[in-house]
Amino acid sequence: MSMNAARTLEDLGEDRLVALLTGTWAKTLKKGMLGVGDDCAVLPPLSGKNTRTLFKTDAVVEGVHFTRKDPPRLVGWKALARCVSDMAAMGGEPVSALITLGAPPSESVSRLSGIYRGIKKAADAFGIALVGGETTRCRELFISVALTGKVEAKNLVLRSGASFGDAIFVTGTLGGTLRGKHLRFTPRLDEARWLVHHCKPSAMMDVSDGLAKDLPRLCRVSGVGFYLDGNAVPVSRCCSIEQALCDGEDFELLFTVSEKKVSALVRCWPFKTRLSKIGRITVAGQGKPMSNQHGFDHFKRA
Amino acid sequence: MSMNAARTLEDLGEDRLVALLTGTWAKTLKKGMLGVGDDCAVLPPLSGKNTRTLFKTDAVVEGVHFTRKDPPRLVGWKALARCVSDMAAMGGEPVSALITLGAPPSESVSRLSGIYRGIKKAADAFGIALVGGETTRCRELFISVALTGKVEAKNLVLRSGASFGDAIFVTGTLGGTLRGKHLRFTPRLDEARWLVHHCKPSAMMDVSDGLAKDLPRLCRVSGVGFYLDGNAVPVSRCCSIEQALCDGEDFELLFTVSEKKVSALVRCWPFKTRLSKIGRITVAGQGKPMSNQHGFDHFKRA
Repeated sequence: MSMNAARTLEDLGEDRLVALLTGTWAKTLKKGMLGVGDDCAVLPPLSGKNTRTLFKTDAVVEGVHFTRKDPPRLVGWKALARCVSDMAAMGGEPVSALITLGAPPSESVSRLSGIYRGIKKAADAFGIALVGGETTRCRELFISVALTGKVEAKNLVLRSGASFGDAIFVTGTLGGTLRGKHLRFTPRLDEARWLVHHCKPSAMMDVSDGLAKDLPRLCRVSGVGFYLDGNAVPVSRCCSIEQALCDGEDFELLFTVSEKKVSALVRCWPFKTRLSKIGRITVAGQGKPMSNQHGFDHFKRA
Repeated sequence: MSMNAARTLEDLGEDRLVALLTGTWAKTLKKGMLGVGDDCAVLPPLSGKNTRTLFKTDAVVEGVHFTRKDPPRLVGWKALARCVSDMAAMGGEPVSALITLGAPPSESVSRLSGIYRGIKKAADAFGIALVGGETTRCRELFISVALTGKVEAKNLVLRSGASFGDAIFVTGTLGGTLRGKHLRFTPRLDEARWLVHHCKPSAMMDVSDGLAKDLPRLCRVSGVGFYLDGNAVPVSRCCSIEQALCDGEDFELLFTVSEKKVSALVRCWPFKTRLSKIGRITVAGQGKPMSNQHGFDHFKRA
């Protein structure tokens, strides 16, 4: 049987599947990297004395993060772009990725090829070397991504640095993930890199579980409270404020900057991406915290 | 409801689950590391000029790599130890791990706690910092591990270095995985580190899909053939030679060394772990290759 005639993984087998899915990955490797084909990937020294390595993993699962009806390329894009969004939120840049695939033997090879084309597209878009991965059988389709990255030590931004009086900002608009945004978003890598160079945030994270859940998280680890101006929250078209706060999967940057930097930030912001000042940091226990039960929880009943 | 009374993930919710499962991880961190709690883990410079970074991912799935009847601690041990075995096979050592959990909302919290205790035990045994991870809903339980490691550039061993005339060795005994070996194995980290320091192999890999599949893989990327002495294959107790060749999940080291190093290797080998010379490298196309269909394939019909 020719490879093209093979319709499912069961027909193709593991070795031919890996060859098919990862055939273009060698072109993404940078100098000194060893990719697919050995027990581990090998990377050249990732970072010098003044650089830190970032390390992130994330999985998307069919029926949770995407459906059978979603275009496979967008599913692959999303799987990798989610992790890129996390690197951006630390002020850093991605370097290399490993892709783990879990799939039932009955899964269509052409669908998986589409997903992997989406992964490759994201890798090219963000300069990521695809250095290997793993395939396994699983009744439910999942793609688990492990990503390394780097950030200059002075540009590293944590969630825990927010201080009393800081202004709270968010990029883009919130809500509307269920109408397809969660598959088509662009991680705010350029915006985050600009921020750390021009107006370093005191704290930053990406909004993945909804502002209602993620802002209290940022404040908790910073040991502060917050005041949120509901009217200033940038709501996506055709969404309610509740959807903007609770949908999740916005992949926008949520960050705080000291009040004295605010006017320069707003004046110099060079992106089309919307920038909204949505509140300010208060002392812990003050302000009017939203319930953190409102955002997305993977396990709780709705 | 107190945390102890919670029986399933659905009762507990994601944030409390993460707190419960990763509560002891901070103790595993080394200087300059940032673990659970931000968008990414942060690592100090992983490697200097003469060191290479290793990067590996692997997943275990219920019903494929373990069953509901297996002791949870051993499942966790296996999940991490599999990746350690891959680092050993490159001549290197593990440094830090991220753990991604996929689980149904109905999963028992105490079972997951057991699995994470097994992960922690393996992390302690092999000096691995547990720096973060992710949880997601999935109908089938899986644990996906991403592991970084390091190896001195001069000690890096690839699969592709086997040469004509080299002797082929394997550690331990092969077969018997289905009787529990796959849950209780010790990755051959000490043996591999000794080898790269005292008798550097020309090629090395770990046996994960069975010798019948893995030896042809090593030879294919080395561009060589092999002769296998069936009588010299170390067969686990109560196993047939076929089981030894095809069961998979042995997690033993398969390596080649130049013929002139063989006698010193056998004489100086300081471990109780058995060491067997099982054949030699021939020119490509020579020897009597086993069919590579015999080993374990995740997707093919049995």
